[in-house]
Amino acid sequence: MNAKSDLFCAAVDWGTTNMRVWLLDRSGDVRESRSSDEGMRAAMPDRFEAIMEKHLGQMGAPVGLPVIICGMAGARGGWVEAEYMKTPADLAAAHESAVKVAHATRDIRILPGACQMDDGREDVMRGEETQLAGAVAGSRTSGIFCMPGTHSKWAQVDEGRLVHFTTFMTGEMHGLVSKHSILRDTLGEAKADAENPAFASALDEMLEGRGFTEALFSIRASALLKGVEAGDLASRLSGLVIGSEIASAKRAFEPEEVGLVAAGPLSDLYRAALARADIHAQALDGEALARRGLFAAAQSFWGNT
Amino acid sequence: MNAKSDLFCAAVDWGTTNMRVWLLDRSGDVRESRSSDEGMRAAMPDRFEAIMEKHLGQMGAPVGLPVIICGMAGARGGWVEAEYMKTPADLAAAHESAVKVAHATRDIRILPGACQMDDGREDVMRGEETQLAGAVAGSRTSGIFCMPGTHSKWAQVDEGRLVHFTTFMTGEMHGLVSKHSILRDTLGEAKADAENPAFASALDEMLEGRGFTEALFSIRASALLKGVEAGDLASRLSGLVIGSEIASAKRAFEPEEVGLVAAGPLSDLYRAALARADIHAQALDGEALARRGLFAAAQSFWGNT
Repeated sequence: MNAKSDLFCAAVDWGTTNMRVWLLDRSGDVRESRSSDEGMRAAMPDRFEAIMEKHLGQMGAPVGLPVIICGMAGARGGWVEAEYMKTPADLAAAHESAVKVAHATRDIRILPGACQMDDGREDVMRGEETQLAGAVAGSRTSGIFCMPGTHSKWAQVDEGRLVHFTTFMTGEMHGLVSKHSILRDTLGEAKADAENPAFASALDEMLEGRGFTEALFSIRASALLKGVEAGDLASRLSGLVIGSEIASAKRAFEPEEVGLVAAGPLSDLYRAALARADIHAQALDGEALARRGLFAAAQSFWGNT
Repeated sequence: MNAKSDLFCAAVDWGTTNMRVWLLDRSGDVRESRSSDEGMRAAMPDRFEAIMEKHLGQMGAPVGLPVIICGMAGARGGWVEAEYMKTPADLAAAHESAVKVAHATRDIRILPGACQMDDGREDVMRGEETQLAGAVAGSRTSGIFCMPGTHSKWAQVDEGRLVHFTTFMTGEMHGLVSKHSILRDTLGEAKADAENPAFASALDEMLEGRGFTEALFSIRASALLKGVEAGDLASRLSGLVIGSEIASAKRAFEPEEVGLVAAGPLSDLYRAALARADIHAQALDGEALARRGLFAAAQSFWGNT
């Protein structure tokens, strides 16, 4: 008996720097999965289909298996542009704004991102809306979500609708300061540690309303004046960037509890930081959320066939 | 009659990227001046004396004319390290902590910088303390000073003493975001304009307490979603970085009036921004302040000879 015969679809989360592919059965369970660093940057402008077919072939996906995709493949300059859903957006209706890839050998749908048009609060996401749809499909239909990363997102979902969201350039700011600023040599390769008191005190400063660009230079000055160690400085920098995000988000979203979509070291830092801000964090698995959101959309397309 | 015969000293303001040299008479009036891009970076580690003597020679300075220097020449890794004065620091007593350059053909003194040792608020300046000493010498003995730049300084001076100061990485943050971040392509080469409504509304957002890393991404999103023009985006970015600085400084220094030490386009932007924050700005000439501060220190050394 061929284990691949009861596959339902392939699901792809195509990020900027990475991509993940799953083969799912009719229950949404994973039969095969793989990830690679062939993100949007590697795939632009015309390697999307070749990369996808390569992975599907290696995973033994049948020729006619349909594919559902979220993320940067739908960006302008990606594979095929999928317009944004506007907030407030019904997350379970993403499939209605999906695009179908023309002239493909199989049925391939790319899900839309989400956008917010408010003046001064314009914002966009691609991929996170599918994770949020996955949360909704998993009966977490209302709540506030904290999704850390290069461009951290905070999102408010009410009864399955994405009401409001904000992008914080937290991870990118950390990279800019540690790789390109005058603090670069001071910081070196040291890593932040959630247990380091310098992380906590930096968080407190930001939560008390101190300005980010104001506190930053103390990293250099404290190294110069007091010989503070690189590990303490790195923890302080992470405390400042993450604290700046959480302080702003706390004012904007007034959360008592958030769903925290993070993994690895970032998850440790954010859990510690949210606790310090008196915000209860419930850990969520971002990969599982994306997969569930993709599966829910796939069911809308192909569930009755 | 030789016009150079009544010279009192040479004064040098040695910054990171530029340097200025003045020949001063006994009244502190300028007889000759020049500036060059041979700042600390170009002069390190052993070209300080050669560069200085080249300029003094070309200006016709007598061989024995003493020289007073402020700025990065006194930094660690500069010409000769001049330690910092600690806050609270008597600005008129800077000469007491100056270093004399050994084995030089003339009397050369390098003035100290200033530092602040408070935990989490460690800070340093080199050069600005001499401008502040110049303000004090010019009878502006108390007040709050706003000194925009790559590393903007806000300083509180009470009765001739530097009580407290804070560095904001405003100019550097502007450079990081516009040259190295995801906003780079969005912004292009466009310049900020103090008259642009996007500048004012960005200032207002920061003054109302919005977070800097929170507001930043709207620049990209508004270009993507609404095709906002680069000039508006550049004005918004400047409004956000300058607004972030002024919002923090307003909380920390509670100023009604500041001495604004800025020139050129930066002066226009800061005057508009300070007005928007209900802070009265009195324009001060930074070059004249530095020269006056250097002259005051020179008088302490050589005034009675």
